[in-house]
Amino acid sequence: MAERRGIIVVVSGFSGTGKGTLMKQLTARYDNYTLSVSMTTRKPREGEVDGREYFFTTDENFEKLISEGQFIEHAGYCGHYYGTPREFVDRMLASGKDVLLEIEVQGALQVREIYPDAVLLFVTAPSAAELVNRLNKRGTESPEIIAQRMARAREEARYIDRYDYLLVNDDLDRCTQLMHEIITAAHATPRCNREFIGEITRSLDEE
Amino acid sequence: MAERRGIIVVVSGFSGTGKGTLMKQLTARYDNYTLSVSMTTRKPREGEVDGREYFFTTDENFEKLISEGQFIEHAGYCGHYYGTPREFVDRMLASGKDVLLEIEVQGALQVREIYPDAVLLFVTAPSAAELVNRLNKRGTESPEIIAQRMARAREEARYIDRYDYLLVNDDLDRCTQLMHEIITAAHATPRCNREFIGEITRSLDEE
Repeated sequence: MAERRGIIVVVSGFSGTGKGTLMKQLTARYDNYTLSVSMTTRKPREGEVDGREYFFTTDENFEKLISEGQFIEHAGYCGHYYGTPREFVDRMLASGKDVLLEIEVQGALQVREIYPDAVLLFVTAPSAAELVNRLNKRGTESPEIIAQRMARAREEARYIDRYDYLLVNDDLDRCTQLMHEIITAAHATPRCNREFIGEITRSLDEE
Repeated sequence: MAERRGIIVVVSGFSGTGKGTLMKQLTARYDNYTLSVSMTTRKPREGEVDGREYFFTTDENFEKLISEGQFIEHAGYCGHYYGTPREFVDRMLASGKDVLLEIEVQGALQVREIYPDAVLLFVTAPSAAELVNRLNKRGTESPEIIAQRMARAREEARYIDRYDYLLVNDDLDRCTQLMHEIITAAHATPRCNREFIGEITRSLDEE
Protein backbone atom coordinates (compact mmCIF):
# COMPACT_ATOMS: atom_id res chain seq x y z
CA MET A 1 0.00 0.00 0.00
CA ALA A 2 1.01 3.59 -0.57
CA GLU A 3 1.98 5.67 2.44
CA ARG A 4 -0.96 6.68 4.59
CA ARG A 5 -1.87 10.36 4.34
CA GLY A 6 -3.98 11.93 7.06
CA ILE A 7 -7.59 13.01 6.74
CA ILE A 8 -9.17 16.21 8.05
CA VAL A 9 -11.98 15.47 10.49
CA VAL A 10 -14.33 18.35 11.18
CA VAL A 11 -16.39 18.06 14.36
CA SER A 12 -19.47 20.22 14.80
CA GLY A 13 -22.60 19.75 16.84
CA PHE A 14 -25.09 21.09 19.31
CA SER A 15 -23.94 22.85 22.45
CA GLY A 16 -23.46 20.56 25.44
CA THR A 17 -23.11 17.30 23.52
CA GLY A 18 -19.52 16.62 24.52
CA LYS A 19 -17.57 17.37 21.31
CA GLY A 20 -14.44 18.45 23.18
CA THR A 21 -14.40 15.43 25.50
CA LEU A 22 -14.91 13.14 22.53
CA MET A 23 -11.95 14.62 20.66
CA LYS A 24 -9.72 14.42 23.73
CA GLN A 25 -10.75 10.80 24.30
CA LEU A 26 -9.97 9.96 20.68
CA THR A 27 -6.46 11.48 20.76
CA ALA A 28 -5.76 9.80 24.11
CA ARG A 29 -6.81 6.35 22.92
CA TYR A 30 -5.38 6.23 19.38
CA ASP A 31 -2.11 7.66 18.12
CA ASN A 32 -3.17 8.55 14.58
CA TYR A 33 -4.97 11.72 15.67
CA THR A 34 -3.84 15.24 16.39
CA LEU A 35 -5.86 18.28 17.40
CA SER A 36 -5.52 21.28 15.15
CA VAL A 37 -3.77 24.21 16.91
CA SER A 38 -5.40 27.57 16.18
CA MET A 39 -3.55 30.83 15.74
CA THR A 40 -4.61 33.91 17.70
CA THR A 41 -3.58 37.51 18.24
CA ARG A 42 -4.62 37.56 21.87
CA LYS A 43 -1.88 37.46 24.50
CA PRO A 44 -0.88 34.07 26.01
CA ARG A 45 -2.42 33.39 29.41
CA GLU A 46 -0.53 32.04 32.39
CA GLY A 47 0.65 28.53 31.54
CA GLU A 48 -0.19 28.63 27.83
CA VAL A 49 2.58 27.48 25.52
CA ASP A 50 3.07 28.76 21.96
CA GLY A 51 2.24 25.91 19.57
CA ARG A 52 0.33 23.93 22.18
CA GLU A 53 -2.80 25.89 23.22
CA TYR A 54 -2.38 28.35 20.35
CA PHE A 55 0.13 29.77 17.95
CA PHE A 56 0.45 33.35 19.22
CA THR A 57 1.14 36.11 16.73
CA THR A 58 0.67 39.83 16.01
CA ASP A 59 -2.26 41.53 14.26
CA GLU A 60 0.10 42.53 11.47
CA ASN A 61 1.27 38.98 10.83
CA PHE A 62 -2.25 37.54 11.14
CA GLU A 63 -3.55 39.99 8.52
CA LYS A 64 -0.62 39.19 6.24
CA LEU A 65 -1.43 35.47 6.56
CA ILE A 66 -5.13 36.16 5.78
CA SER A 67 -4.15 38.02 2.62
CA GLU A 68 -1.95 35.10 1.61
CA GLY A 69 -4.82 32.63 2.08
CA GLN A 70 -2.95 30.89 4.88
CA PHE A 71 -6.04 30.12 6.95
CA ILE A 72 -8.48 27.30 6.40
CA GLU A 73 -11.01 29.41 8.27
CA HIS A 74 -10.73 32.45 10.53
CA ALA A 75 -12.90 34.84 12.51
CA GLY A 76 -12.72 37.85 14.81
CA TYR A 77 -13.90 37.52 18.40
CA CYS A 78 -13.70 40.12 21.20
CA GLY A 79 -11.19 42.23 19.28
CA HIS A 80 -8.81 39.35 18.53
CA TYR A 81 -8.29 37.15 15.53
CA TYR A 82 -8.60 33.36 15.68
CA GLY A 83 -7.88 31.05 12.76
CA THR A 84 -6.80 27.58 11.63
CA PRO A 85 -3.39 27.81 9.92
CA ARG A 86 -3.26 25.77 6.77
CA GLU A 87 0.48 25.10 7.06
CA PHE A 88 0.16 23.24 10.38
CA VAL A 89 -2.77 21.17 9.14
CA ASP A 90 -1.04 20.29 5.87
CA ARG A 91 2.16 19.30 7.66
CA MET A 92 0.24 17.00 10.01
CA LEU A 93 -1.72 15.45 7.10
CA ALA A 94 1.50 14.82 5.17
CA SER A 95 3.01 13.13 8.21
CA GLY A 96 0.05 10.72 8.26
CA LYS A 97 -1.90 12.24 11.15
CA ASP A 98 -5.67 12.61 11.02
CA VAL A 99 -6.34 16.20 12.08
CA LEU A 100 -9.34 16.98 14.29
CA LEU A 101 -10.93 20.42 13.95
CA GLU A 102 -13.81 21.62 16.10
CA ILE A 103 -15.67 24.19 14.00
CA GLU A 104 -19.24 25.49 13.74
CA VAL A 105 -21.41 24.65 10.74
CA GLN A 106 -20.53 27.56 8.42
CA GLY A 107 -16.80 27.05 8.95
CA ALA A 108 -17.21 23.30 8.43
CA LEU A 109 -18.63 23.81 4.96
CA GLN A 110 -15.75 26.19 4.15
CA VAL A 111 -13.25 23.52 5.15
CA ARG A 112 -14.98 21.06 2.83
CA GLU A 113 -14.53 23.49 -0.07
CA ILE A 114 -10.76 23.60 0.51
CA TYR A 115 -10.44 19.91 1.44
CA PRO A 116 -13.09 17.92 -0.46
CA ASP A 117 -11.90 14.73 1.28
CA ALA A 118 -12.58 16.12 4.78
CA VAL A 119 -14.90 13.98 6.88
CA LEU A 120 -17.65 16.08 8.50
CA LEU A 121 -19.11 14.77 11.77
CA PHE A 122 -22.09 16.23 13.58
CA VAL A 123 -22.41 15.37 17.27
CA THR A 124 -25.83 15.23 18.89
CA ALA A 125 -27.48 14.16 22.14
CA PRO A 126 -29.14 10.71 22.20
CA SER A 127 -32.69 12.07 21.93
CA ALA A 128 -34.55 15.22 21.02
CA ALA A 129 -35.91 15.46 24.58
CA GLU A 130 -32.44 15.19 26.09
CA LEU A 131 -31.01 17.73 23.67
CA VAL A 132 -33.72 20.27 24.51
CA ASN A 133 -33.15 19.52 28.19
CA ARG A 134 -29.43 20.16 27.93
CA LEU A 135 -29.94 23.39 25.99
CA ASN A 136 -32.63 24.63 28.40
CA LYS A 137 -31.22 23.97 31.79
CA ARG A 138 -27.53 24.19 32.27
CA GLY A 139 -27.97 25.55 35.74
CA THR A 140 -27.12 29.19 36.07
CA GLU A 141 -27.88 30.64 32.68
CA SER A 142 -30.23 33.52 31.89
CA PRO A 143 -33.33 33.18 29.67
CA GLU A 144 -31.48 35.29 27.06
CA ILE A 145 -28.56 32.86 26.88
CA ILE A 146 -30.94 29.90 26.66
CA ALA A 147 -32.93 31.59 23.88
CA GLN A 148 -29.68 32.28 22.00
CA ARG A 149 -28.60 28.67 22.35
CA MET A 150 -31.94 27.36 21.14
CA ALA A 151 -31.87 29.70 18.14
CA ARG A 152 -28.38 28.53 17.28
CA ALA A 153 -29.35 24.85 17.62
CA ARG A 154 -32.34 25.40 15.31
CA GLU A 155 -30.00 26.93 12.75
CA GLU A 156 -27.44 24.11 13.13
CA ALA A 157 -30.09 21.38 12.76
CA ARG A 158 -30.77 22.62 9.22
CA TYR A 159 -27.21 21.70 8.28
CA ILE A 160 -27.07 18.10 9.57
CA ASP A 161 -27.85 16.71 6.10
CA ARG A 162 -24.71 18.36 4.74
CA TYR A 163 -22.57 16.33 7.16
CA ASP A 164 -21.16 12.91 6.33
CA TYR A 165 -21.99 11.36 9.69
CA LEU A 166 -24.23 11.90 12.66
CA LEU A 167 -22.64 10.90 15.97
CA VAL A 168 -25.13 10.22 18.73
CA ASN A 169 -23.23 10.73 21.97
CA ASP A 170 -25.16 8.37 24.24
CA ASP A 171 -22.05 6.81 25.79
CA LEU A 172 -18.59 8.37 25.58
CA ASP A 173 -16.73 5.09 25.12
CA ARG A 174 -19.02 3.77 22.43
CA CYS A 175 -19.16 7.13 20.66
CA THR A 176 -15.35 7.43 20.68
CA GLN A 177 -15.09 4.00 19.13
CA LEU A 178 -17.70 4.75 16.46
CA MET A 179 -15.86 7.96 15.61
CA HIS A 180 -12.65 5.98 15.21
CA GLU A 181 -14.42 3.40 13.02
CA ILE A 182 -15.86 6.13 10.82
CA ILE A 183 -12.43 7.66 10.26
CA THR A 184 -10.83 4.25 9.70
CA ALA A 185 -13.49 3.57 7.05
CA ALA A 186 -12.79 6.95 5.42
CA HIS A 187 -9.22 5.83 4.78
CA ALA A 188 -10.57 2.96 2.68
CA THR A 189 -12.33 5.11 0.07
CA PRO A 190 -11.01 5.04 -3.51
CA ARG A 191 -10.07 8.74 -3.30
CA CYS A 192 -7.77 7.97 -0.35
CA ASN A 193 -6.16 5.17 -2.35
CA ARG A 194 -5.53 6.77 -5.74
CA GLU A 195 -1.90 5.66 -5.83
CA PHE A 196 -2.72 2.03 -5.06
CA ILE A 197 -5.52 1.93 -7.66
CA GLY A 198 -3.22 3.50 -10.27
CA GLU A 199 -0.55 0.91 -9.57
CA ILE A 200 -3.01 -2.00 -9.84
CA THR A 201 -4.45 -0.64 -13.08
CA ARG A 202 -1.00 -0.18 -14.63
CA SER A 203 0.18 -3.63 -13.56
CA LEU A 204 -2.87 -5.26 -15.13
CA ASP A 205 -2.45 -3.30 -18.36
CA GLU A 206 1.23 -4.25 -18.60
CA GLU A 207 0.58 -7.98 -18.39
CA MET B 1 -33.00 6.40 18.24
CA ALA B 2 -35.34 5.11 15.55
CA GLU B 3 -35.38 1.40 14.81
CA ARG B 4 -32.34 0.21 12.90
CA ARG B 5 -33.05 -0.66 9.26
CA GLY B 6 -30.58 -2.86 7.40
CA ILE B 7 -28.23 -1.71 4.66
CA ILE B 8 -27.45 -3.49 1.39
CA VAL B 9 -23.76 -4.30 1.11
CA VAL B 10 -22.56 -5.18 -2.38
CA VAL B 11 -19.26 -7.05 -2.54
CA SER B 12 -17.34 -7.17 -5.82
CA GLY B 13 -13.68 -7.64 -6.56
CA PHE B 14 -10.96 -9.35 -8.47
CA SER B 15 -10.97 -13.12 -8.84
CA GLY B 16 -9.06 -14.96 -6.12
CA THR B 17 -9.13 -12.18 -3.51
CA GLY B 18 -11.28 -14.07 -1.01
CA LYS B 19 -14.66 -12.31 -1.27
CA GLY B 20 -16.62 -15.43 -0.34
CA THR B 21 -14.46 -16.25 2.68
CA LEU B 22 -14.69 -12.66 3.86
CA MET B 23 -18.50 -12.67 3.69
CA LYS B 24 -18.72 -16.01 5.51
CA GLN B 25 -16.36 -14.73 8.19
CA LEU B 26 -18.43 -11.60 8.64
CA THR B 27 -21.73 -13.48 9.06
CA ALA B 28 -20.05 -15.94 11.46
CA ARG B 29 -18.59 -13.22 13.64
CA TYR B 30 -21.41 -10.66 13.82
CA ASP B 31 -25.14 -11.31 13.97
CA ASN B 32 -26.35 -8.25 12.05
CA TYR B 33 -25.50 -9.76 8.65
CA THR B 34 -27.28 -12.13 6.35
CA LEU B 35 -26.25 -13.43 2.94
CA SER B 36 -28.68 -12.79 0.14
CA VAL B 37 -30.22 -16.04 -1.18
CA SER B 38 -30.46 -16.13 -4.99
CA MET B 39 -33.31 -17.68 -6.97
CA THR B 40 -32.58 -20.15 -9.77
CA THR B 41 -34.41 -22.36 -12.27
CA ARG B 42 -31.83 -25.12 -12.16
CA LYS B 43 -32.67 -28.30 -10.25
CA PRO B 44 -31.53 -28.63 -6.62
CA ARG B 45 -28.39 -30.72 -6.18
CA GLU B 46 -27.96 -33.42 -3.55
CA GLY B 47 -28.09 -31.79 -0.13
CA GLU B 48 -29.26 -28.35 -1.29
CA VAL B 49 -32.21 -26.94 0.62
CA ASP B 50 -34.80 -24.58 -0.87
CA GLY B 51 -34.32 -21.14 0.74
CA ARG B 52 -30.81 -21.94 1.98
CA GLU B 53 -28.49 -22.41 -1.01
CA TYR B 54 -31.11 -21.06 -3.45
CA PHE B 55 -34.79 -20.47 -3.87
CA PHE B 56 -35.68 -23.04 -6.54
CA THR B 57 -38.43 -22.25 -9.02
CA THR B 58 -39.70 -22.87 -12.56
CA ASP B 59 -38.81 -20.97 -15.75
CA GLU B 60 -42.41 -19.83 -15.96
CA ASN B 61 -42.42 -18.37 -12.46
CA PHE B 62 -38.96 -16.79 -12.88
CA GLU B 63 -40.08 -15.04 -16.09
CA LYS B 64 -43.23 -13.83 -14.38
CA LEU B 65 -41.12 -12.40 -11.53
CA ILE B 66 -38.81 -10.67 -14.05
CA SER B 67 -41.81 -9.05 -15.76
CA GLU B 68 -43.03 -7.86 -12.36
CA GLY B 69 -39.64 -6.28 -11.56
CA GLN B 70 -39.15 -8.68 -8.66
CA PHE B 71 -35.38 -9.03 -9.15
CA ILE B 72 -32.72 -6.61 -8.03
CA GLU B 73 -30.53 -8.11 -10.73
CA HIS B 74 -30.70 -11.31 -12.77
CA ALA B 75 -28.84 -13.13 -15.53
CA GLY B 76 -28.92 -16.30 -17.59
CA TYR B 77 -26.10 -18.82 -17.23
CA CYS B 78 -25.79 -22.27 -18.88
CA GLY B 79 -29.46 -22.34 -19.80
CA HIS B 80 -30.75 -21.43 -16.33
CA TYR B 81 -31.84 -18.21 -14.71
CA TYR B 82 -30.21 -16.79 -11.59
CA GLY B 83 -31.40 -13.68 -9.80
CA THR B 84 -31.58 -11.77 -6.51
CA PRO B 85 -35.22 -11.62 -5.35
CA ARG B 86 -36.16 -8.20 -4.11
CA GLU B 87 -38.76 -9.53 -1.67
CA PHE B 88 -36.21 -11.51 0.38
CA VAL B 89 -33.76 -8.60 0.49
CA ASP B 90 -36.45 -6.09 1.49
CA ARG B 91 -37.76 -8.38 4.20
CA MET B 92 -34.27 -8.80 5.67
CA LEU B 93 -33.60 -5.03 5.51
CA ALA B 94 -36.90 -4.28 7.26
CA SER B 95 -36.01 -6.76 10.01
CA GLY B 96 -32.78 -4.81 10.61
CA LYS B 97 -30.33 -7.18 8.91
CA ASP B 98 -27.52 -5.89 6.72
CA VAL B 99 -27.74 -7.93 3.53
CA LEU B 100 -24.54 -9.05 1.80
CA LEU B 101 -24.65 -9.54 -1.98
CA GLU B 102 -21.71 -10.81 -4.01
CA ILE B 103 -22.18 -9.35 -7.49
CA GLU B 104 -19.91 -8.38 -10.38
CA VAL B 105 -19.35 -4.71 -11.29
CA GLN B 106 -22.20 -4.18 -13.76
CA GLY B 107 -24.73 -5.74 -11.40
CA ALA B 108 -23.35 -3.72 -8.50
CA LEU B 109 -24.09 -0.46 -10.26
CA GLN B 110 -27.62 -1.69 -11.05
CA VAL B 111 -28.19 -2.41 -7.36
CA ARG B 112 -27.08 1.13 -6.52
CA GLU B 113 -29.71 2.51 -8.90
CA ILE B 114 -32.48 0.64 -7.06
CA TYR B 115 -30.98 1.17 -3.58
CA PRO B 116 -29.09 4.50 -3.52
CA ASP B 117 -28.06 3.81 0.09
CA ALA B 118 -26.31 0.53 -0.79
CA VAL B 119 -22.67 0.38 0.28
CA LEU B 120 -20.42 -0.82 -2.54
CA LEU B 121 -17.19 -2.60 -1.54
CA PHE B 122 -14.45 -3.66 -3.92
CA VAL B 123 -12.08 -6.37 -2.67
CA THR B 124 -8.50 -6.49 -3.93
CA ALA B 125 -5.23 -8.26 -3.22
CA PRO B 126 -2.66 -6.38 -1.07
CA SER B 127 -0.43 -5.43 -4.02
CA ALA B 128 -0.49 -5.21 -7.78
CA ALA B 129 2.24 -7.86 -8.00
CA GLU B 130 0.30 -10.27 -5.79
CA LEU B 131 -2.92 -9.69 -7.70
CA VAL B 132 -1.26 -10.43 -11.05
CA ASN B 133 0.35 -13.49 -9.46
CA ARG B 134 -2.97 -14.81 -8.22
CA LEU B 135 -4.63 -14.21 -11.58
CA ASN B 136 -1.76 -15.81 -13.50
CA LYS B 137 -1.03 -18.96 -11.61
CA ARG B 138 -3.82 -20.75 -9.93
CA GLY B 139 -2.29 -24.10 -10.69
CA THR B 140 -4.10 -26.09 -13.31
CA GLU B 141 -5.64 -23.45 -15.52
CA SER B 142 -5.15 -23.05 -19.28
CA PRO B 143 -3.62 -19.93 -20.91
CA GLU B 144 -7.11 -19.17 -22.27
CA ILE B 145 -8.66 -19.11 -18.80
CA ILE B 146 -5.82 -16.94 -17.49
CA ALA B 147 -6.17 -14.52 -20.42
CA GLN B 148 -9.93 -14.33 -19.76
CA ARG B 149 -9.36 -13.63 -16.09
CA MET B 150 -6.80 -10.89 -16.83
CA ALA B 151 -9.16 -9.26 -19.33
CA ARG B 152 -11.93 -9.31 -16.79
CA ALA B 153 -9.71 -7.84 -14.06
CA ARG B 154 -8.65 -5.02 -16.42
CA GLU B 155 -12.31 -4.25 -17.06
CA GLU B 156 -13.17 -4.41 -13.34
CA ALA B 157 -10.28 -2.11 -12.37
CA ARG B 158 -11.91 0.68 -14.39
CA TYR B 159 -14.90 0.58 -12.04
CA ILE B 160 -13.10 0.81 -8.68
CA ASP B 161 -13.69 4.58 -8.50
CA ARG B 162 -17.45 3.99 -8.63
CA TYR B 163 -17.26 1.96 -5.42
CA ASP B 164 -17.58 3.47 -1.96
CA TYR B 165 -14.72 1.50 -0.41
CA LEU B 166 -11.67 -0.46 -1.44
CA LEU B 167 -10.96 -3.46 0.79
CA VAL B 168 -7.38 -4.65 0.68
CA ASN B 169 -7.49 -8.30 1.75
CA ASP B 170 -4.03 -8.66 3.23
CA ASP B 171 -5.19 -10.46 6.36
CA LEU B 172 -8.60 -12.12 6.68
CA ASP B 173 -9.16 -11.12 10.31
CA ARG B 174 -8.18 -7.51 9.83
CA CYS B 175 -10.12 -7.23 6.57
CA THR B 176 -13.25 -8.72 8.17
CA GLN B 177 -13.01 -6.18 10.95
CA LEU B 178 -12.49 -3.26 8.56
CA MET B 179 -15.51 -4.41 6.55
CA HIS B 180 -17.57 -4.44 9.74
CA GLU B 181 -16.32 -0.96 10.68
CA ILE B 182 -17.21 0.38 7.24
CA ILE B 183 -20.77 -0.95 7.50
CA THR B 184 -21.11 0.28 11.10
CA ALA B 185 -20.05 3.74 9.89
CA ALA B 186 -22.59 3.59 7.05
CA HIS B 187 -25.37 3.32 9.64
CA ALA B 188 -24.30 6.70 11.03
CA THR B 189 -24.93 8.72 7.85
CA PRO B 190 -27.71 11.33 7.91
CA ARG B 191 -29.65 9.39 5.26
CA CYS B 192 -29.77 6.37 7.57
CA ASN B 193 -31.05 8.58 10.39
CA ARG B 194 -33.77 10.64 8.72
CA GLU B 195 -36.31 9.86 11.40
CA PHE B 196 -34.00 10.89 14.24
CA ILE B 197 -33.01 14.13 12.48
CA GLY B 198 -36.68 14.94 11.80
CA GLU B 199 -37.53 14.39 15.44
CA ILE B 200 -34.69 16.63 16.67
CA THR B 201 -35.60 19.38 14.22
CA ARG B 202 -39.28 19.29 15.23
CA SER B 203 -38.47 19.30 18.95
CA LEU B 204 -36.23 22.35 18.56
CA ASP B 205 -38.84 24.20 16.51
CA GLU B 206 -41.55 23.48 19.09
CA GLU B 207 -39.60 24.97 21.99
